[in-house]
Amino acid sequence: MTTCLGFAAHEAHAALTPIRFERRALRADDVAIDIAYCGVCHSDAHQVNNDWNNTVYPIVPGHEIVGHVTAVGSDVTRFKVGDRVAVGCQVDSCLQCAPCSEHQEQLCIHGPTTTYNGKDRQTGEITYGGYSEHIVVREQFVLRMPVNLDPRYAAPLLCAGITVWNPMRRYGVGKGSKVAVVGLGGLGHMAVKLATALGAEVTVITTSPGKADDARTLGANHVLLSNDSAAMQAAANAFEFIIDTIPSRHNVNPYLMLLGREGVLVLVGAIEPLEPIHGGLLIRNNRTLAGSLVGGIQAIQELLDFCAEHQVLPSCEMIDIKDINTAFERLQRNDVKYRFVIDMTTLRDVALL
Amino acid sequence: MTTCLGFAAHEAHAALTPIRFERRALRADDVAIDIAYCGVCHSDAHQVNNDWNNTVYPIVPGHEIVGHVTAVGSDVTRFKVGDRVAVGCQVDSCLQCAPCSEHQEQLCIHGPTTTYNGKDRQTGEITYGGYSEHIVVREQFVLRMPVNLDPRYAAPLLCAGITVWNPMRRYGVGKGSKVAVVGLGGLGHMAVKLATALGAEVTVITTSPGKADDARTLGANHVLLSNDSAAMQAAANAFEFIIDTIPSRHNVNPYLMLLGREGVLVLVGAIEPLEPIHGGLLIRNNRTLAGSLVGGIQAIQELLDFCAEHQVLPSCEMIDIKDINTAFERLQRNDVKYRFVIDMTTLRDVALL
Repeated sequence: MTTCLGFAAHEAHAALTPIRFERRALRADDVAIDIAYCGVCHSDAHQVNNDWNNTVYPIVPGHEIVGHVTAVGSDVTRFKVGDRVAVGCQVDSCLQCAPCSEHQEQLCIHGPTTTYNGKDRQTGEITYGGYSEHIVVREQFVLRMPVNLDPRYAAPLLCAGITVWNPMRRYGVGKGSKVAVVGLGGLGHMAVKLATALGAEVTVITTSPGKADDARTLGANHVLLSNDSAAMQAAANAFEFIIDTIPSRHNVNPYLMLLGREGVLVLVGAIEPLEPIHGGLLIRNNRTLAGSLVGGIQAIQELLDFCAEHQVLPSCEMIDIKDINTAFERLQRNDVKYRFVIDMTTLRDVALL
Repeated sequence: MTTCLGFAAHEAHAALTPIRFERRALRADDVAIDIAYCGVCHSDAHQVNNDWNNTVYPIVPGHEIVGHVTAVGSDVTRFKVGDRVAVGCQVDSCLQCAPCSEHQEQLCIHGPTTTYNGKDRQTGEITYGGYSEHIVVREQFVLRMPVNLDPRYAAPLLCAGITVWNPMRRYGVGKGSKVAVVGLGGLGHMAVKLATALGAEVTVITTSPGKADDARTLGANHVLLSNDSAAMQAAANAFEFIIDTIPSRHNVNPYLMLLGREGVLVLVGAIEPLEPIHGGLLIRNNRTLAGSLVGGIQAIQELLDFCAEHQVLPSCEMIDIKDINTAFERLQRNDVKYRFVIDMTTLRDVALL
């Protein structure tokens, strides 16, 4: 066991405060990682607030982790001390079932072990996330950071990035694909950058004219205002693929209408009941509404390598760990362009307090 | 022009009565067909009642047509007088757009010409369907009836059959596929027979224990009662493909829950708003909800050939045309196993009245 400094919430809606807790001792197939950067995901706030009724306190959030290896277990073959590495939303799974065998560990039929607020498969202890000094992770769930991927900006790829990348790859987004992105937050801005890098023709759909310039700066070719009914009518049947990142109940019918023949709208944000969907909109044009949950380890590695090669980097606002509670408040107001990343070296200042 | 005897409704909710109307003269690329059998589709009743607010009266319904060729235009190459043929839901389309080029005439971007209550692309005249003596159809929209497919039972393949066949083929239903069929009417019973013939393991999902024996007689391997919550829980994640033939607003969430990883639920019946769908059910397991609209000419031909080869025949109740109004009433009560087919030779008796 190693003592580890981190930030935790001790009850629902409580501020995060420093905590010292024990990390497990290195197992033979484990990699120990010093954390340099950790992204701040919407789900971190949901979990802290127990919005999903499954939070075990104290909770140390964080599943967009970038760092370097400080020790490896005796069976580890792919990593050595000093390697730059990353960790995403899962730190373990059964590795035996069909999804695991097909590189979809996030869909493990026995349930993957989440990076925080999960249960260690061997001891049943609750897992703690990346708002901390270091972490111990099974080798199979450690990603290799490409040398030319700037570690300061890479963290959001581990959740926001893979969440939009995985369905783009599944549905073959590529050169000339007509893609629309609904919602321009942490996930949406990554969708714009990644779809653009894949060669797609990208339209951002938003209610806010003020976001038009931002969308174009991110690489979008077009902006469609969803409250401009003439423009929406004119865009009927125009898209092959729409990624809908809205993280709450909403009406997808106006977006379904924009799908062409056999077009696909992928939901990645809304995990609650939607407004009633019109069956006729799906039947006409053989349209599809699909859901997608992050991605497997192989897909994340592919994403990191792609982002290094194409120099696609999330737009990050770097914060000190002491400002995490303010960041959570700003997150609620969507006051971030587009992802907070915690510089985890600032934990040292906290340690000195 | 040729005078043609048929049955028509003259206003919403009116009984169908005999009518004499003009069929267009044969064009160079037309095939003239004497109608032997015509299936009775739910949509025939909807159109007669103007449920979709687009009915032009008088309306002669019928888009599940089986007959033989009586004349061909000068440019017709694939058919000759005497050939057994069939006609489905479409009698024309632009044949130029992307969907048409890819054998999806039913999704023609300029709108296909429906077999009845459509508009002829050259004259703008309203089309009349198969509740009639004969019909004139553009060669490209005429299907060849395989010699060993019993014409008395083939008519429902032209709409009910292709509606369930097309998504099964699109999503690769085949040997060992775990398939569920929701709703056991005209479409559902064809889904059971076709999925079984494709080698799938088929479960019928129904609210009614009384349908269990019927389902097994049709070929289903299992029956799942949707109001048995323990059985539904036990079947969570069990299916790769679910075809949902319920023709009205309903709650698909209990069925989505039954889909395994990347499983697909295809809606073919409900063209209205559904009960609110739970986004989390789609995101978990990367599930898909898709719509599907009949099928193209090539797919219908494939279906006819498949049904001939595997001797898959719809379960039909043969009626005289004079009993069509009673059949419509029984259809409203789901009192048919499983499709009414009109013996169109009985029009001769009407002609003698």
